[in-house]
Amino acid sequence: MSKLLIKNIELLHSPNGEANCIAVDGRKIVYVGKELPATFQADEVVDGKGKLATPGMVNTHGHVSMTLLRSYADDMALMDWLENKIWPLEAKLGAEDIYWGAMLGIVEMLKGGTTCYADMYYFMDEVARATAETGIRANLCRGLVGLTPDAYDKIAENTELVQKWNGYDEGRIRTTYGPHAPYTCPVPYLEKIIQAAADNKAEIQMHLCETKFEVESYQKEQGMTPIAMMDKLGMFDLGTIAAHCVHLTEADMDIMAAKKVRVAHNPQSNLKLASGIAPVARMLEKGILVGLGTDGTSSNNNLDMLEECRLAAMLHKATTLDPLVVPAHKAWEMATVDGAKVLGFKNVGLLETGQEADIVLWDMHKPYWYPRYNKESLLVYAASANDVDTVFVAGKKVLEAGKLVTFDEEKIYAEAMRCVDRILKR
Amino acid sequence: MSKLLIKNIELLHSPNGEANCIAVDGRKIVYVGKELPATFQADEVVDGKGKLATPGMVNTHGHVSMTLLRSYADDMALMDWLENKIWPLEAKLGAEDIYWGAMLGIVEMLKGGTTCYADMYYFMDEVARATAETGIRANLCRGLVGLTPDAYDKIAENTELVQKWNGYDEGRIRTTYGPHAPYTCPVPYLEKIIQAAADNKAEIQMHLCETKFEVESYQKEQGMTPIAMMDKLGMFDLGTIAAHCVHLTEADMDIMAAKKVRVAHNPQSNLKLASGIAPVARMLEKGILVGLGTDGTSSNNNLDMLEECRLAAMLHKATTLDPLVVPAHKAWEMATVDGAKVLGFKNVGLLETGQEADIVLWDMHKPYWYPRYNKESLLVYAASANDVDTVFVAGKKVLEAGKLVTFDEEKIYAEAMRCVDRILKR
Repeated sequence: MSKLLIKNIELLHSPNGEANCIAVDGRKIVYVGKELPATFQADEVVDGKGKLATPGMVNTHGHVSMTLLRSYADDMALMDWLENKIWPLEAKLGAEDIYWGAMLGIVEMLKGGTTCYADMYYFMDEVARATAETGIRANLCRGLVGLTPDAYDKIAENTELVQKWNGYDEGRIRTTYGPHAPYTCPVPYLEKIIQAAADNKAEIQMHLCETKFEVESYQKEQGMTPIAMMDKLGMFDLGTIAAHCVHLTEADMDIMAAKKVRVAHNPQSNLKLASGIAPVARMLEKGILVGLGTDGTSSNNNLDMLEECRLAAMLHKATTLDPLVVPAHKAWEMATVDGAKVLGFKNVGLLETGQEADIVLWDMHKPYWYPRYNKESLLVYAASANDVDTVFVAGKKVLEAGKLVTFDEEKIYAEAMRCVDRILKR
Repeated sequence: MSKLLIKNIELLHSPNGEANCIAVDGRKIVYVGKELPATFQADEVVDGKGKLATPGMVNTHGHVSMTLLRSYADDMALMDWLENKIWPLEAKLGAEDIYWGAMLGIVEMLKGGTTCYADMYYFMDEVARATAETGIRANLCRGLVGLTPDAYDKIAENTELVQKWNGYDEGRIRTTYGPHAPYTCPVPYLEKIIQAAADNKAEIQMHLCETKFEVESYQKEQGMTPIAMMDKLGMFDLGTIAAHCVHLTEADMDIMAAKKVRVAHNPQSNLKLASGIAPVARMLEKGILVGLGTDGTSSNNNLDMLEECRLAAMLHKATTLDPLVVPAHKAWEMATVDGAKVLGFKNVGLLETGQEADIVLWDMHKPYWYPRYNKESLLVYAASANDVDTVFVAGKKVLEAGKLVTFDEEKIYAEAMRCVDRILKR
């Protein structure tokens, strides 16, 4: 187990305001403070002068391989966009495309300070492989749509994913079941998924209450909201990561609070797809745990978690006309430690002794980092994902001087472009 | 007059889709296309391989020297924030602080692809000097608050600014009069300003209808909306740049359309200060010209115009629940050519023959620039201000390889920090 020392570093939240070093033993942070214990003999020393250390960000919702569709179709009405652009192109993707799409998305996330992500897609073995190789942390599920003849095969694929990958590399990969959405999963199909998840002691990831149309038509057809139905089916008793949650009733939020449903809030995707603005201030008031996500790059169009953090800090002030709502500190928690809890990772998201060493060093030598009355305000309201210089995940260096160290970045770009050329010819 | 050739470049909007070079003679673009005229002998050739050329962005509203207050106070209620934090610190700023604050803001804007900005503050001679030295384009006014004993001296200062700086460097600097806001400018004071502006053939910049409270109390006290009052006073006949315009009636917008009031929309500032969300989709429907702005760094907290462009493209989709509203192309026009028109600059904001050579080259070798189905979508929805590599303003190179060439960047950071240290001791 190698020992790492980061010295001369500034910390976002420094114990007693004077810490300047972080010691890592193997995967874990063993010390944060000013006086390094003499017994700690580092194998590697990183000089953090001029840099700010923070925990890595956690992207609680997305479809990483959709990077291959980035900029393919934008500014369209939802069903036109899905039926005429996104779904036909997705139908052409093969396993190799999914792998290189995942690699392209992961390199973007690591370069932008995101050290952990959630994924719901298909050919998930390829996504798990890309995750394993690049060193990033993830919670993966197979997207389950119950409207096609192979609907039940997909549940079997999800079970394979869970059985093969859950707990990989001392828990760096977690797995879940991924019912896609209320409108794509009939009740008997959901019951089957919930049973499989229970059998395999797995939690759930699901799109819930993303659009007004979804919720209104579900209420008409089922006589209850999607949240009420999932509760009735027992899904929430397993542990559920609910993505979007834009259109909720007070009763929905009460159920979610009581059943500890964890929310993946995707502010940019909700804006860009004209889904609306989630009632985040109200959810927080009710004690619901909320993390942040980018969603796929077709509805964003990048995987920049700092943008989501900034938007989460700003957006809900305007909808409530209350400037005290979602302050920078809360937005940063949502982007890091709260997101880690949403995805079910323990001891992730803080720079403290005993935590997993998921650490980001930000280069502050940019005009918008001056002056420095409040580094948390600077990070949340002014900084750029491009300021990320060095990244560790579970104590392993994955990014140095802004470059990926676990894989050849140039190869990723070249292979992703090769996949796109091939897909367009199919 | 020196001649510049940018070759091997990709263009955001390429005539016939095949242009790969831009020729500049002195301050102007003289050719955009594929076959450079043989008669054009370049003094300098820039290889644009791997880069995208766009016009520079135009920041239509701000207070640039407020960079010195960045991160000093955030997440506070408006009047608490102004009365207990911002105003007391602003009262301590001297001419030298205003100069270095402006330099810090200008270096940030140029590094982020903004080549033109609007400013309303005090010690404006210092802001004009920083503008002159760095090479950026600007429309400057003296902020005029009519509630203090020196109210009329400020109008005299604004007139001095106009008489000294308007038209500087072949029109690179324009000047305007800057009545601060309806609630800080009593009617007799506004009449005096309008008279001074008319006498000096100058236009107006003003904060208008920023908060619900402002508009409601103005209606109660004056019996009409701020827009109706400014119209009645004849302000709009001079030409007016109206910042914010968050809370407008249909009648207000009809007046604005008829009188060609030009709007500076500041989406991030409006969110962060909990002012609300401006009815931009409706304004555009009515034919009102809308540009984008950052506002000051106390309410943003950076001067990143690409962020404002992205947010403008996304935000109004969610408030209207219409994904077709403010598409990427319109948001980019708002950030560039429409913004230039808002600020009254002619032949600025497009990469076309006869336009001022305000050109930005973006480095596309970043993960979020792949793949490239649609470069405008990538720029508006995925790119970063940090991708800016080279910037020209009026044909003069001001940024190269991401570094300011007209001034020592390191000196700017050091002097700005020195100013802050001094201010805090006052």
